[in-house]
Amino acid sequence: MNVSIINIGNELLIGQVVNSNAAMMSRKLIAAGIDVKEIAVIGDSADAISTTLRRLHRTSDAVIMTGGLGPTKDDITKQVLCDFYGSVLVENPEALANIQRIFDARGYELTPLNRRQAWVPECCTMINNVLGTAPAMWFESGTRRRKVVVSLPGVPFEAENLMDTEIIPRLKSYFQTGIIINKNILVQGIGESFLSDLIEPWETGLPQCMSLAYLPQAGMVKLRLTAKGDNHDELVNGVMREVKKLYLLAGQYIVGEDLETIPEAVARIFSMNALTLSTAESCTGGALASKLTALSGASKYFRGGVVAYSNDVKMDILGVRRETLESQGAVSEATVREMAEGIRSRTSSDYGVATSGVAGPTGGTDEKPVGTVWIAVAGPRGTETRLKKFGDDRLRTIERACNEVFSMLINQIKEREQ
Amino acid sequence: MNVSIINIGNELLIGQVVNSNAAMMSRKLIAAGIDVKEIAVIGDSADAISTTLRRLHRTSDAVIMTGGLGPTKDDITKQVLCDFYGSVLVENPEALANIQRIFDARGYELTPLNRRQAWVPECCTMINNVLGTAPAMWFESGTRRRKVVVSLPGVPFEAENLMDTEIIPRLKSYFQTGIIINKNILVQGIGESFLSDLIEPWETGLPQCMSLAYLPQAGMVKLRLTAKGDNHDELVNGVMREVKKLYLLAGQYIVGEDLETIPEAVARIFSMNALTLSTAESCTGGALASKLTALSGASKYFRGGVVAYSNDVKMDILGVRRETLESQGAVSEATVREMAEGIRSRTSSDYGVATSGVAGPTGGTDEKPVGTVWIAVAGPRGTETRLKKFGDDRLRTIERACNEVFSMLINQIKEREQ
Repeated sequence: MNVSIINIGNELLIGQVVNSNAAMMSRKLIAAGIDVKEIAVIGDSADAISTTLRRLHRTSDAVIMTGGLGPTKDDITKQVLCDFYGSVLVENPEALANIQRIFDARGYELTPLNRRQAWVPECCTMINNVLGTAPAMWFESGTRRRKVVVSLPGVPFEAENLMDTEIIPRLKSYFQTGIIINKNILVQGIGESFLSDLIEPWETGLPQCMSLAYLPQAGMVKLRLTAKGDNHDELVNGVMREVKKLYLLAGQYIVGEDLETIPEAVARIFSMNALTLSTAESCTGGALASKLTALSGASKYFRGGVVAYSNDVKMDILGVRRETLESQGAVSEATVREMAEGIRSRTSSDYGVATSGVAGPTGGTDEKPVGTVWIAVAGPRGTETRLKKFGDDRLRTIERACNEVFSMLINQIKEREQ
Repeated sequence: MNVSIINIGNELLIGQVVNSNAAMMSRKLIAAGIDVKEIAVIGDSADAISTTLRRLHRTSDAVIMTGGLGPTKDDITKQVLCDFYGSVLVENPEALANIQRIFDARGYELTPLNRRQAWVPECCTMINNVLGTAPAMWFESGTRRRKVVVSLPGVPFEAENLMDTEIIPRLKSYFQTGIIINKNILVQGIGESFLSDLIEPWETGLPQCMSLAYLPQAGMVKLRLTAKGDNHDELVNGVMREVKKLYLLAGQYIVGEDLETIPEAVARIFSMNALTLSTAESCTGGALASKLTALSGASKYFRGGVVAYSNDVKMDILGVRRETLESQGAVSEATVREMAEGIRSRTSSDYGVATSGVAGPTGGTDEKPVGTVWIAVAGPRGTETRLKKFGDDRLRTIERACNEVFSMLINQIKEREQ
């Protein structure tokens, strides 16, 4: 079966908002074994919604729409759906109770405009949106080829919660999609094409019910092994067997299982080994700490960090020596080494990491052009330093410097544990 | 005139990558006075590309496509374009020289596969992509109603550079879109609906050639005043006159002109007033520093920051007293005040800001539930503290706490300057 997505909203068409809903929905659909055929982004216009709905309803088994359900706009999407199904809007008592509950909690009076949000097409199944006032709607039609249309609110966290708790389970059951097992394996320290060569014998020998996807990310590759079938236990056991074989071929590059990003891999390896970490950042400016602390549970292993933008902070808080800064400069191996060792001892952490570089676009010299970054990782076995040249885009340099730090950390700890 | 966008790539359909190209392109088109009609995201399939191109070519003046031009995939998009225009692929010498230049700079040998990237449909105008190996292509057709199709590489920074330097200027000239003047005014400290009431008399009195858009963002509203016409100087003068009138009505809420985000407003106000800033972060975990240092020129006013995740770091580096932490707890007015004052004096900055809270999802108590955040801003006139409850989503709590800090900072400095 396949699904098409329609994201409705003028704010998407003018580029005011990046369409994160589409990626979120696609990820969840793919993980459930449901293919995504097309994503259409259109404005708040009845014509555009109607035309796009008719077109995608013809070619897809299900169409999931987001947006156009706010209290000032709801008539557009809902009226198009009424016209499409030849239905009329009726007040839904359960939706009204949910809206009343949310207004009571916020201490607001319910206005007639807000009450309109409880009206849904008579022919749909109303799906309660516990996080917001716009209900979701589920429409079924067809007998020989069954079709579904879903309308969700455009607020990302409301849409995500409804996808998880209601829409994905309902689609799986309605279209009897069978059982899907996904296993993610994060691989780091080897390029995609070398990895592909290395594991080719394993990949070609996979059972027919399994498929492998390469999902390259900044600094690493995510391998996704997907098994489809009818017997849950058989699939799980089969996946476990194949993952064991993969470890024999590429174990040294595997960072972890069921992880999504490289900071998650850092969190996993520090938590598992009961190690602690601190950061001393110049050119990454807090991005290292921010990426680590964006994950819940960071306080278990992350003790803290210093953003040492000025030389005074490098000296006063991190203990970098004035003569080092004066003779070598802030962007140097000696400075970044003293920063990493300084934050490590200052916070009594097992590992201290540091970055110092020229993020740009200004500040570059012939000797140290924009994109030059020194990185240091100080640990129980000493300090490792690395010089990188990342090019002239400020945000990409920050991003790539962070990934480099995380990679060096993971490798040091893996080597130590082996 | 209007444009439709086609973003091609399986990585977009499976949600591996968020479609940031669409928002980037839309913003630039809208700023140039060109409406965006639809954004279609489809996979790397000749059928899908062909069908979508035919459909949108009928309804739009121009279609801009991204993706499908990598060395392993280029035959798909280019072959579809050849079929669409009845053309054939020929090697373009200028494109080949560009590819050769890039390979030489990286020290790589040019392979036949890479050389294929220099082949483009004979009927198109090749547009050189100085940042990458896949050339852009420009197709024209029609006499009574002129139509354009553009094909761009999917790599975001290559696509962005081509939009700025080539595609937008060419579209404006080819379709003679006239002159557009945009003026952005950032407003902060007043909700969208109150702002709308306040400036209504001004908005309704705008000359016919001008229009106003409300673009609400986290913590603020961006007003965009757009003037369209033929005479550049008249438009600029007219916009200046109207902005002056806006200041008379809402000047106290205006943070700055030609700014995009709230950290940019902070950077502007600190640079203009030659002030310095430092951060002490617990629950925001480096996000405050990271948002400030993502902007170039941050070193002018940002001295540094401490991410004080553990209580030891709060005491040792920021000088928070042990008795404060023991009697009041880390998430308390007293702690956050000592953190802000500590970082301010430690770094000799004009302003020191601090956050301490329960970002969640764990760590909440009845008294201090998840989402509880204490904020302090220490400045020349003393320390202001604020307690906020942001709800139970970790990343949204971090985001909203940062915006609250930035708002408090801006307001304190504006009050001081008045």
